Order: sequence, then structure tokens, then C-alpha cells
Amino acid sequence: MRSSPAAQPSQKGCVSGVGTGTGLAVIVLIETSIPTVSKRVSVSPERLREFFAPRSLAVVGASDTSGWAQFILASSAAAGFSGPLIPVHPRHETVFGRPAVPSLRDLAEPVDLAFVMVPTDAVPEVIDDAAAAGVRHAVVLASGYREAGPEGRARQDQLVAHAAGRGILLLGPNCLGFLNTHAPAGPFALSVPLPLRPGPVGIALQSGALASAVLAFARSRAIGVSTLVTMGNESMISTADVLGYLVGDEQTRVICLFLEEISEPDRFADAARAAAEAGKPVVVLKTGSSPVGQVAALAHTGSIAGDDAVVEVVLRQLGLIRVASIEELLGTAGLLAYDRWPRGRRMGVLTSSGGACGLIADRASQHDIAIPPFAAQTVTTIKPHLPAFAAAHNPLDVTGYVLANPRETALTAVDHALDAAVADPGLDFVLFCGLTVPDARSPDEGLARLLEERVRWLGERIASAPIPVIPIGTTCVDVSGYARDLTTRHGVHLLGGIDLGMQALGHALRWLENHGTQRHPAPARTLSRAVRNTAASQTASSWSEAAARELLAACAVPLVPAELVTSAEAAAQAARRLGSPVALKVCSAQIAHKSDIGGVALGVHGDAQVRDAYRRVLAAAQTVPGAFVDGVLVTPMRSGGVELLVGVTVDHTFGPVLTVGLGGVWVELLADTSLRILPVTADDVKHMLGELRGSPLLRGARGTRPADLDVLARVVTNVGDAALSIPNGSLRALEINPLWVNGDQVEALDVLLVTEGS
Amino acid sequence: MRSSPAAQPSQKGCVSGVGTGTGLAVIVLIETSIPTVSKRVSVSPERLREFFAPRSLAVVGASDTSGWAQFILASSAAAGFSGPLIPVHPRHETVFGRPAVPSLRDLAEPVDLAFVMVPTDAVPEVIDDAAAAGVRHAVVLASGYREAGPEGRARQDQLVAHAAGRGILLLGPNCLGFLNTHAPAGPFALSVPLPLRPGPVGIALQSGALASAVLAFARSRAIGVSTLVTMGNESMISTADVLGYLVGDEQTRVICLFLEEISEPDRFADAARAAAEAGKPVVVLKTGSSPVGQVAALAHTGSIAGDDAVVEVVLRQLGLIRVASIEELLGTAGLLAYDRWPRGRRMGVLTSSGGACGLIADRASQHDIAIPPFAAQTVTTIKPHLPAFAAAHNPLDVTGYVLANPRETALTAVDHALDAAVADPGLDFVLFCGLTVPDARSPDEGLARLLEERVRWLGERIASAPIPVIPIGTTCVDVSGYARDLTTRHGVHLLGGIDLGMQALGHALRWLENHGTQRHPAPARTLSRAVRNTAASQTASSWSEAAARELLAACAVPLVPAELVTSAEAAAQAARRLGSPVALKVCSAQIAHKSDIGGVALGVHGDAQVRDAYRRVLAAAQTVPGAFVDGVLVTPMRSGGVELLVGVTVDHTFGPVLTVGLGGVWVELLADTSLRILPVTADDVKHMLGELRGSPLLRGARGTRPADLDVLARVVTNVGDAALSIPNGSLRALEINPLWVNGDQVEALDVLLVTEGS
Repeated sequence: MRSSPAAQPSQKGCVSGVGTGTGLAVIVLIETSIPTVSKRVSVSPERLREFFAPRSLAVVGASDTSGWAQFILASSAAAGFSGPLIPVHPRHETVFGRPAVPSLRDLAEPVDLAFVMVPTDAVPEVIDDAAAAGVRHAVVLASGYREAGPEGRARQDQLVAHAAGRGILLLGPNCLGFLNTHAPAGPFALSVPLPLRPGPVGIALQSGALASAVLAFARSRAIGVSTLVTMGNESMISTADVLGYLVGDEQTRVICLFLEEISEPDRFADAARAAAEAGKPVVVLKTGSSPVGQVAALAHTGSIAGDDAVVEVVLRQLGLIRVASIEELLGTAGLLAYDRWPRGRRMGVLTSSGGACGLIADRASQHDIAIPPFAAQTVTTIKPHLPAFAAAHNPLDVTGYVLANPRETALTAVDHALDAAVADPGLDFVLFCGLTVPDARSPDEGLARLLEERVRWLGERIASAPIPVIPIGTTCVDVSGYARDLTTRHGVHLLGGIDLGMQALGHALRWLENHGTQRHPAPARTLSRAVRNTAASQTASSWSEAAARELLAACAVPLVPAELVTSAEAAAQAARRLGSPVALKVCSAQIAHKSDIGGVALGVHGDAQVRDAYRRVLAAAQTVPGAFVDGVLVTPMRSGGVELLVGVTVDHTFGPVLTVGLGGVWVELLADTSLRILPVTADDVKHMLGELRGSPLLRGARGTRPADLDVLARVVTNVGDAALSIPNGSLRALEINPLWVNGDQVEALDVLLVTEGS
Repeated sequence: MRSSPAAQPSQKGCVSGVGTGTGLAVIVLIETSIPTVSKRVSVSPERLREFFAPRSLAVVGASDTSGWAQFILASSAAAGFSGPLIPVHPRHETVFGRPAVPSLRDLAEPVDLAFVMVPTDAVPEVIDDAAAAGVRHAVVLASGYREAGPEGRARQDQLVAHAAGRGILLLGPNCLGFLNTHAPAGPFALSVPLPLRPGPVGIALQSGALASAVLAFARSRAIGVSTLVTMGNESMISTADVLGYLVGDEQTRVICLFLEEISEPDRFADAARAAAEAGKPVVVLKTGSSPVGQVAALAHTGSIAGDDAVVEVVLRQLGLIRVASIEELLGTAGLLAYDRWPRGRRMGVLTSSGGACGLIADRASQHDIAIPPFAAQTVTTIKPHLPAFAAAHNPLDVTGYVLANPRETALTAVDHALDAAVADPGLDFVLFCGLTVPDARSPDEGLARLLEERVRWLGERIASAPIPVIPIGTTCVDVSGYARDLTTRHGVHLLGGIDLGMQALGHALRWLENHGTQRHPAPARTLSRAVRNTAASQTASSWSEAAARELLAACAVPLVPAELVTSAEAAAQAARRLGSPVALKVCSAQIAHKSDIGGVALGVHGDAQVRDAYRRVLAAAQTVPGAFVDGVLVTPMRSGGVELLVGVTVDHTFGPVLTVGLGGVWVELLADTSLRILPVTADDVKHMLGELRGSPLLRGARGTRPADLDVLARVVTNVGDAALSIPNGSLRALEINPLWVNGDQVEALDVLLVTEGS
């Protein structure tokens, strides 16, 4: 229903400057005009609980030929909605055999929710009717609002003002409604695969039309849904609101989000933190990872990472689980919602196929899950249940022989092995790949009863075992109706195949390990008056390097010594004081990319060379029309050590983003960077450095002096503070490239700062 | 049934040397005793065709209580086997209501195949009976053979000799038989998910117990099977044989392999090449990518890559498609078996959900599939079929509004869009995500007929459209029985969800692009007598650097100039001739890792320093007991340029493997290497260099002189030839680290050669 990413209103922007800095960075600036979003009023959780649990429903615009109305009727039935469902139509006396009323004003008493299916133009009148009738909640299906350009946006603002003025809360417009299996209620205008199963997974979708597919896959995996909401245009109820509602919803244990954008980052972050505090995992499928998606980056560091890298790091910083497919979304949610949570990464594996062992071992290795040897006692206990030729090791293949043996008892070798494995002190959980339920109940009543008995036993073991037991199917085929009834009755939830199941386990383990460690935003630092003054005094759109150095110095970022000189002789004297060789760089607020125009001389030795270089870089600056030259910066060259790139760019949604990378091939050829939304702590920075593939270089690989990570982390944190000290959100890019690190010596060798002109 | 990877007989081996060479490489040598595999006799295709199409079957050891026998009966029925199926049991007169015979000798006439289910000890007698009865083909289920240690291996050799001596061909032992839906025949001792659908996908599995899961997933995706074979111990019929059979099988269009090992690399390669020539894609799921799997590596270059990297490159060199899960195996096979093959990477996308567009766009980007804008004509044709607010762009979201409209004709907006898109000159194929078939036929006969009409239309369009149309479901849920019948009747094959479908498309496109370009093995090069003499004269287990240099020089590998000196004065004279600074390295066949013991001096200037360094490295050598010192090698130092690592190690299955990587961080920290099985051509080497992440350095990134790739490729090819010139398979490791490259100057700076001692 929502338009595709390519249809999103593209951001106005143009490349305003491309060039090479004195370092190796390429800075691309895009002037972004961020549309002013009218701040939404937060909706109280009580109000949302009321909204999503209507006991009576009016369907405005329903007629016998309306597909939407048919869907709503069917969805209400699927959810088990038993309240009044009243069609509203000006010209029909009955709709689908139910008596209709001409207008909401004709209702005998107000309904809890109106599902408004009328054309766009007729919506305001229906809102008036609703207000007059005392109806406080409405779902609006119509399109032609925010998704339809500036005119639509204005129409949406009017709609919101209209509804808000009358005390009415809207879901949508341009949305398909919701399902609440616990209320129960189903004002949902799309087909629902049957049966719709109540359960612990709450879902919010920014693409409503995807709901049927999501529900179909949930059904195929026997995953039950608490509330599913299609978000539409989020005019009054936002994804952040629904996330908050699901966090507070007792029926919801795990939350699934399908996102195309994160429009209210602060409120979204608050809701995500509330989810973490409530111990409810949030699994996110966010599109836009392709170049098609979203906006171009603001600077070198941003363009390396791409916008999706910012989303990635935001989701990670908030402790959310990011997945890449609908299957992974629900597979992961199903594991976390139904299965006991593993305590660690040591996995016991029980199968009846060597091939499955191999597949599981390969996937486990990918997800850093260990398959340690069984304890001696476990081997001893398992051995008698295996054929003589089979070995009792982890991963265990009880072999197909066991399956073919005549069955007189419910339990098979793999079940006995389970009893042994759960007592193994070296395991954190057991993956049980030993249960296959046929599509239909066996006509052999004895066999059917044995299976029922076995599943009951397995359910009990899962509930009572000292460590979690996680059952898994070999491949991702549907759990049939028979299998669904049988397994869920006994509390057995089968992961959907080795591939999906191991992915889900990987996600779950990472979430469990990081849970509680997500940082609350660092307290906004109180910046010294000096810093604020330095920052506030600058209004130009780009800063001379000398001015940028002043700002960084005030923020305790160590800089390579430098002297700003205005004569060749002064340059030579400065070089003598600083020690050869030196670098000379022309210093002008109008020349951001000095080396492009020949404004930089590197490795200069001796008076004569220095004087010559001084004249050369100055002459180069004079070729730039309108450039005011402050002078020439003389700095000593540094050698040895490791060079870092430290940059701050501004994401149009999430604000200032810190990027850290090692210089040279690491950034240039490998895009090896780590990102965080500012502010950061020194600990965050240490984590960032540790995430770099090149991080061994900081620890002294290849004969370099190991960096003092405490000192380095403090400096990088200070760079972040310097960026945040730029007032009024006018920062565009701050880049230190390189930041030179040699043991505990850390110095910014080259600085670039660009702010938005006033 | 097959033991898990961890149960594979581990290779005998021990670390015989660990150390740091003069370069940065760490060489780990493992003495491998490769078990002598008795060469199998190739089975003729005619014989295999006969084997896999039996018209009569005896089940030896069948009884009413045997699970195996029950499975075979059910599988035969599932396959549609209509020939005689005769139970053979010494004590039962009837089995499953069928008259039994006491022994194969009692058969009225020979059966085409005996399925032998008797215990291991009884197998030889049954073979005798079979021979006496004129039965020429047998499947042996029993275990206790090759998988059961040396004793089992001997038992298997006896079994093969016994059967071969009597003209009997065996599948197994330790196997579950096969299914042939076209013969039809089902001597298969595992449960078969019903219905078993005949079709174009041939399957061979080295893990028989996985067959049920594979068949279940095939059924869920409406993928039909031609022949499925469980390989067991491959005593007489190997995976290579079955691959060859499937290549020749008219019913098979695509081949799926589940592999745990590639035991006959040459014959496997021949069969793979035959598949490529026949235009039949082969999709391979090979386990053992985890450290658990397989054998440890032979040398630094091998240990960086890991054995799985060798398998990866072998499969790629043979033009096979490697996948990582059962779902991907069959999903890819299903696309290639049922859908028309796309001609290029420009994809049109038709959906009724913006969310699906976003998911498809993200995945397309990952797989380098383009989604170009529609041509103007396409937009014009599509537009009238969309709601006013929807945009007619690629990817196309026709929006859910279309679904909810009352339906009077079979075709919907997405179908009309399809008609337009297939005529778009800018597209190579169309991904059609617009068909959802319900689980069961609609009780509304009109709706059911409209759907039937629509699917028929779609099938016709798929068959007749100027470009391929590939239908895809949004998620990987089962194709229901109703949907299966409906879609297959009209030639519509739905890919299993966006995730799996896009993966399959990525594989298919790569295969189609590379198809026909796989190289036949380079002709064995005729090496000069000089080279062969040099190689043959060496029998020591490691070579002095001077000797190794001689071999390389004979193979036209340029070496840094070097003089072998035996006095300090001669060293100083050599240094003067070669030019300062120089390196001095002690030269001894017994000291492979010179720098470990202080046997290397680098960057030495001037007579005094050289003399001193000479004495120092010689003294270091004298600390190594039993080392015979040939002298000290003096070489000039090189600076600038790029350093490569070029190594040859020996894979226990595939023989000599060439590894190429850039030196420094690329190999050390990033394991950035490219591998090929030897021999290679200069073109291969250029491809290898292009695969390196650091390859921009060779093209002159970061200010280096661009390497002359022709010269470099020739040198690396010659290194490969040098490795192959070592006679009698005694090569263990040849490593040049670094190979220095500066424009068209290429020189081996340091050489290490280790061969197996006689």
C-alpha cells in the first residue's frame, strides 16, 4: 500500500563541493533541505490500549461490492470479534445482510472505532460525523495524503488538525487497519490466512500490503500474533507509539517491525529503550539498504559508510535485532517468543542424520556457536541407545536405523539422548533436530498415539530440563495444521529449518549477550563557555584550518604544533623552531580543499625550501577567486605510528554521526570504519576501534608501537564533543584526517570543519 | 545414516614445523599420510541406466516388523513402481501379505535389483545367492564398512571384490537406495513425503538420512524429482558415477548434490565438465566449511584460506553452483529447472506491495541485479491500470487497491503491467510478485474460475513472452496441494519467497554468465630437461634457499640478484657489487625459518656492517644442531612497489593449490588471497589478482607504480610450473614471500621450498 522506496519523495539536494583534502579524504557535501515535520503529540498508552481494543465497529463506506469491506468482515471473524459491526452507507439499507445506517450520526450509540473507507474528499465530513456521534477512534484507508506530494501533505495536516480539534485519534491515513487477537478485534482490510492464531508476537508494519505475507509465514511456522498494526502515513499514531504500546501490551513478548523509515528518531529510541527495559526483544526488518534507498551521504566518511550504515548502528545502539527477510524476522521472533532463552553459546546437537550434523556445524561456526564434546557421563548414557557402529559424540547422529526399528514405546534413541544431554554440565542448551510430525494424523491409531505421547513427553522435557531445549526442523516447510495443533498443545515450537533456525539462534544469542548493556544516551556534556564562544563566533560556511584548530584545542583535542605565518621569512623561522621536515598549508576559510589547488607542500627541509614553498602555496591560493587568506600554516611532519580518520557527519534523521577508521588502505580501499551516533563515551570509542578490521595495527601488529587506547579514546570523544559544540545544528562536517597515533602521542595533523552558512 | 563430519576418520598428521620465515609468513607443515584408496573401476553409463531402472525388485531380509521394508513398499508405491516386489526371508512365507521366497536362489527368474537389508555378516552369502540367481544389481543397507575404521574398510574391500568377482554392481553399503520417478522405481528405505512428483531435478546425496527433508522441501516448492540416489559408502558406484548418470539422463535438467567429501576429484571433475557441456546446471551443498570439518591446512597460505576455500575454488573452477542450505539448493534448482533462463541482469519488478519492492530492491542490489527505469512506452501503457495516486515506475507497486476492487475479469492491474513490461526493450527479465494462490479452491465457483483463468493466462504469457517472466511468492510458505496442481498444470513455477528467490536468481545469473567459460585443465606443460633434473636431484625434505632459487630460475621466475658467499670479505665484496643496502641470509637446507634463529640481517650498509652481519648470521646458524650451512646469501634490498605472496601448497584431495595475495596487512590481517588448483594460465592469474580486495594497489592506487600485469601473470604462472616440476608428488610447500613488483620489474625476494623427504 505504501509507495516503494523509489517512490519516496526524493530529497532536494545537489553536490556543492567535491575535492581532495590535504589528506586523502574526498568530501562530498549535499545541501539537504529537510522538510519540516510538524511535531506529533504523543499519544498516551491508555488511549492506544483503548484504540486497539474496540468492542464495537462501524465500517463507513461499506457496500456489498466493496472488497475492503469484505476483508474487514472476514478479518473480524478471523480474529473472533463478537461485538457489533455496523455498516455505514448513505444509500444502502443493508450491507452483507447487516442493517446499515446512513451516517455515523445515525448510530444508536457511539462505536469504539470507525473504519473509514470513503474517498479522500469525503473523509473530513465523516470525521465531523464521528465527532457528532461521539466516536473517538478512526482508521482512515484513503490515500492522497503525505505520500502524494506537497498538496497531499497539506491535506494530511488539515486532516490531523480537523481530527485533533474534535478529540478524534486516527490510524493512517493510507493504512489497512489492525488485528488484535486478544481483544479480539479485526478492523483489517486485507486477507488473513486462516486460522489466525493468537500468540506472543506483536507486529507493526510500515508496508500494510505486506501484512498478508507476514501472517502467512507466521502461520506456516505456527507463530501466534498478539497485535498487528499497519502504520500508513502515521499522521497521529506513529511507529514509535505502536512500539510503545506493544512494549506495554501484556500479550506481547516479542516485537516485529517492518520499517521503511524511522521518522521520529528520539521517540523511537525512547520506545526501543523501554522495550529493552521490559526485556522484550525487538526484531527489525528495515528496507533501504540498497543504493536506491534514502539519501546520499554528507561527507567522505558518510559516503563510505552509506546511510544504511547509520541505520545499522542506530538499531544496534538501541539493542534491536536487525534482520534481512520476512522469514528471518518471524523465525527470530518465534524463537524468542516460544523457546526458552539459551544462557550461552555451548550447544549440544541431537539429530538422526549425519548430513544435518554437518549443516548445523557449518552454520554454528558462522554464528560463533560452539559444539563442545559431550561430557564422559553423557557419552556413557547415550551409547546404549545407539546402534553399535554409531559414535556418541556432539553433534550426535543417532542414525536412521533408529527410525526404522519397530516402535513399541513412544521414545526413540534421540529422546533418550536428550535426557542425557540436558544433564551435561558443559552445555548451555540443546538443539533438538529429532522430531518430524507428518502432515496428517496417522490412520494407524497406535502410531498416532505413540507420536502424541512422544510430543507430550518432549513438551514436558522442554519445560523442565535444566537447560533450554530448542527443537528444530531440518528444512523450512510449513508446520501442517495437524502438526501445529499437536506441537502447540504440548508447548513445542519447531524452528523453521537449519538455515533459518541457526540464524535465529545467532540473533537471539547476540541480543541476550548485549541485553542490558545498551547505553542510555550519554548525558549532554556541559561545554565550557570558551568552547561555546569559539563555536558561536563562527558563521562562515567553512572554517580556515587555523580557526578549526582553535575549536579543537578548546575541546582538548591535541594538535600538531603549528604556526600561522604571513611571510616567507617567518615561515623559515617557524620551520626552524618546529624542526624539519615541515608541511606548509595555505590557510583560508574559502579553501577547504587545499591540496587540490596546490596549496600544500609536504616534507619541506631547510630555509630556502621553506621560503620557496611559502611563496608557492600562497601563489596557489591567489588563483582562487574571492579567497581571503589568513596566512600559511607551518607544521612539523610526523612519521611512524598509525594514522586514523576521525570524522563527524550529520545524518538527516539521526543527527551527528562519529566515524572512526584507520587511514590508508583501510579507509580508502576497504571502507573499514565504525560509526556511532553522538554523543559517545570513551568506552564507546574503544568498542568502535575494536570493531575495525585494522584494529590489530593499534595493538602493535606489524611492529608499530601499540597505541595508548585510553588516551586515544579520550581524544576521539573530545572530537565528538567539539562537533556537538557547534550551535544550532549548523555542523555539516568535521574531519581529522589523519589523527596521528604513536603510542600515547596523539595529534590531529589535518583538520577540516564545515558549518552551514547563516 | 552417514556419520557426521566429526566422525570422519581424522587424517593422521602432526605439526612438523612452525616458524616465521624471512618474510612475514608462518609456515605450518603437517605430515599427511593419505590413505591409499583402491581405484574404483568406472561404471558404464548403460549399466547405471539399467541399475536405476529396475522392473523387478527383491527385498532380502524383509519381514512384517521391518521398518526398512515398510519404507521400501511405501516408496515403491509413491514412485508408482508396478513390477514384481518379492520379499526374501528364510523363515516367513508371506511378508506384508506378499508371498516370500526363502532365498534369492528360489526366485522363478532373476529380478533386476535386490535390496539387501540383512545384517552385515550375512551380506556375502546374499551376494552369492544373487550371483547364483542371476541378479546383477544390489543395494546394500548394512553398516560396518568403510565408515567403521580399518576393520570395516577391509570388510568393504572384501565385499567389493566378492561382488565384482560375480559381476554384481552394488549401491552402498550403508545406503538407503534410490528413487526414480520416470522408470518408475522406489527401492528406497526412508519415508517419502507424498505426493512424490516426477520432474526435472536429479539428486545425489552423500547423507541418505537427509533425503526425506530434501524431498519434503522439494514438495513444498512444487519441485519434481527425476532420480534421487543416496550414495552410502560409494564402494562401487560413486558420486561421480551418479553425476555422470544424471548428466546423461533425459529426464534430468538440473542436478543437486549434497556432498560431505569429493573422493574422486578427477572423475568428479570429468562429470562436472560433462554437465557443463550438456548445459545442465549442477547445484552443490557441501558441508565442512567449519573448522570442525575436514583436514588442517598444509602451510601458511593454506591455513589462511582453510580447506574449504580449496573446495570453494574447485567447485567454481568446475562451473558448479555452491549453496549453503537445503532451501537454497532446491530453490536454485527449481528456478533453473522450471523457469526460463534470464539473459541479463536488468530486471523488471511487478508487485502489489511497496514493502515487497523495498525488499526486492535491497536483495537485487546485493546480487548485482539492476532495476532500471521503465521505458516511456511501458509507463504509458501501465499508468491507466493503476490508481491515480500510484506511480508507474520500476520496481512497480500496483498497490493493494487493485486487489480490493470488485473482480469481473480474470486479469488484474499487475497482469496488465506484465504485458507492458515484457515488451520493455530495457529489461532482460521480469520478476512477477503478483500471484497468490489460496490453500484451497474457493467455494465461490466464480472466483475459483477467475483464478484458474488468470493462472492459465499467466502460464501462456510466461511461455510466450519475449523475455523470461519469473513468478515469485513474497515469503517461503508451502505451495499447497491445490496451488501445486493449479500452477503446475499451467506451467507456472513460483520461486519460494523474496529471500530465497533472489538468492536463486543471483546463482542462476552467475552460472549463466560463466557457463561455457570454465576452463578445461591447462595442458600439462612440457618442462625442460634442465628443470626436471634440478627438481629430481633434490631429495632432502627442505631446500636451501640457494637450491630453491636455482629451481625457480630454471622455470624463468626472476629472482633478486644474490651471491652465495662463504667469508666476511666475500660478503663485503658482493655487497659492493650488488649495491647498498643489502640483506644477508644464512643458507642451509636444514634452516627453513632463518629469521627465527637470527639468521637474517636486513638493510645492511657498508663493508664493516656487512662483515659484522655475515659473522652474526653465521653464528646464529651454528646454534642449530645438525645444520649444514652452504654459506650466506647476499641480496640487495628493494623499496617502493608492491609486495605479493605467491605460494603453492598441496591439498590432500585436489593436489597443488596456488595462492596469490598482496603482502603486508592484506595477507596478515585480512587473509585477502585468491586460490586456484594448478596448473593455471596467465589469464587465470590475472583473474586471481583481480579477485583480491587489494587489487587497486596493483593498478596504481595510493601512488604506487601500476604493475605490468602481463609480466606479473607470466611470473606467477611460472611459479606454478616450478611447483609442478617437483616429481613424484613430493612437493609440500613452495612460497615466495615477498614477490616484489614495481611496474614491469618483478623479483622473488625470498623463497622457501619444502618437499617430502624420500
